[in-house]
Amino acid sequence: MSDEAEILAANTAYYDAFAAADFAAMSRIWADDDPTCIHPGWPALVGRPSILESYRQIFSNPHQERIEPRNATVLVTGDEARVLCVEFVAGAALAATNSFRRVDGAWRMIHHQASPIAALVEEPVAQRSSKRLN
Amino acid sequence: MSDEAEILAANTAYYDAFAAADFAAMSRIWADDDPTCIHPGWPALVGRPSILESYRQIFSNPHQERIEPRNATVLVTGDEARVLCVEFVAGAALAATNSFRRVDGAWRMIHHQASPIAALVEEPVAQRSSKRLN
Repeated sequence: MSDEAEILAANTAYYDAFAAADFAAMSRIWADDDPTCIHPGWPALVGRPSILESYRQIFSNPHQERIEPRNATVLVTGDEARVLCVEFVAGAALAATNSFRRVDGAWRMIHHQASPIAALVEEPVAQRSSKRLN
Repeated sequence: MSDEAEILAANTAYYDAFAAADFAAMSRIWADDDPTCIHPGWPALVGRPSILESYRQIFSNPHQERIEPRNATVLVTGDEARVLCVEFVAGAALAATNSFRRVDGAWRMIHHQASPIAALVEEPVAQRSSKRLN
C-alpha cells in the first residue's frame, strides 16, 4: 500500500469513527504526542485529554449530524502528512485539515481543524436536474 | 536561538508581512513545496501560485482589517512545527493554525488556516476596567 493510500485510509477511519460515535476507535486514531484540534467555532484544544474529552461530548449528543467527507487531497513529506477535504454537514460545507504523523508504522492524527466555507454550497441532485431541464 | 524562538519569529514575520501588505516578504515566508492555505470562509488553496494570488488580492483591499495575533503555542517535532494562536480582527476572534517546515535552516510556512471562534470575544480594556471598578 502506498503512503497516500495508507493516509487516505487513516482519514476515512477518522470519519468512520465519528459516524459510529466509536470512542475507542477515535482514541486509537489520535497521536499520543502534542495533538491539536480546532472544532468549528471552538477555541483550539491542545493535548490528548482535552481532545478526547471533546469527542466524548460530541458523541454524547444525540442530534450530532453525520459528516460526509469529499474531495480529499493528500500531501506527504516523510513521516508527516496533511489531508485537505471538504466536510458536508447538514447541507453546510466546511474546509477541513487533518494532519497525520507516522508513529511506529501507523499514521496517527496530530491535528484537525474544520472551518465553514462561505462560498461553496452543494445543491441536492434533484434540484440540479430540474435546473438543467428548465 | 531555540527552535521555539525561531518558529515564533517566523510566525510574527507572517503577521508583520500581512500588516504591511508586504507581498515580497509574504512570498519569502511561504514554502516552495506543497503549501496549503484556508482563509476564513474560503475553500482550501493548494500550491504557491494560488496562495500567493490570494494574498495579492487581500493586500489590494484598502479595507482589509489589521490582524492582532495573541496567545501563540508552539509545537515542534524535528523539522516540522505548528503554531496555534488567536487572531483578533475587528473585534472578532479566530483560531489560527500556522504550520512551518525547516528548509535549508529557515522555517517556511507550509499551512495556514483561520476559523471563527464563536465563544471567545475580547472586551475592550476600558470596559474590563469599568467592570472591575463597579
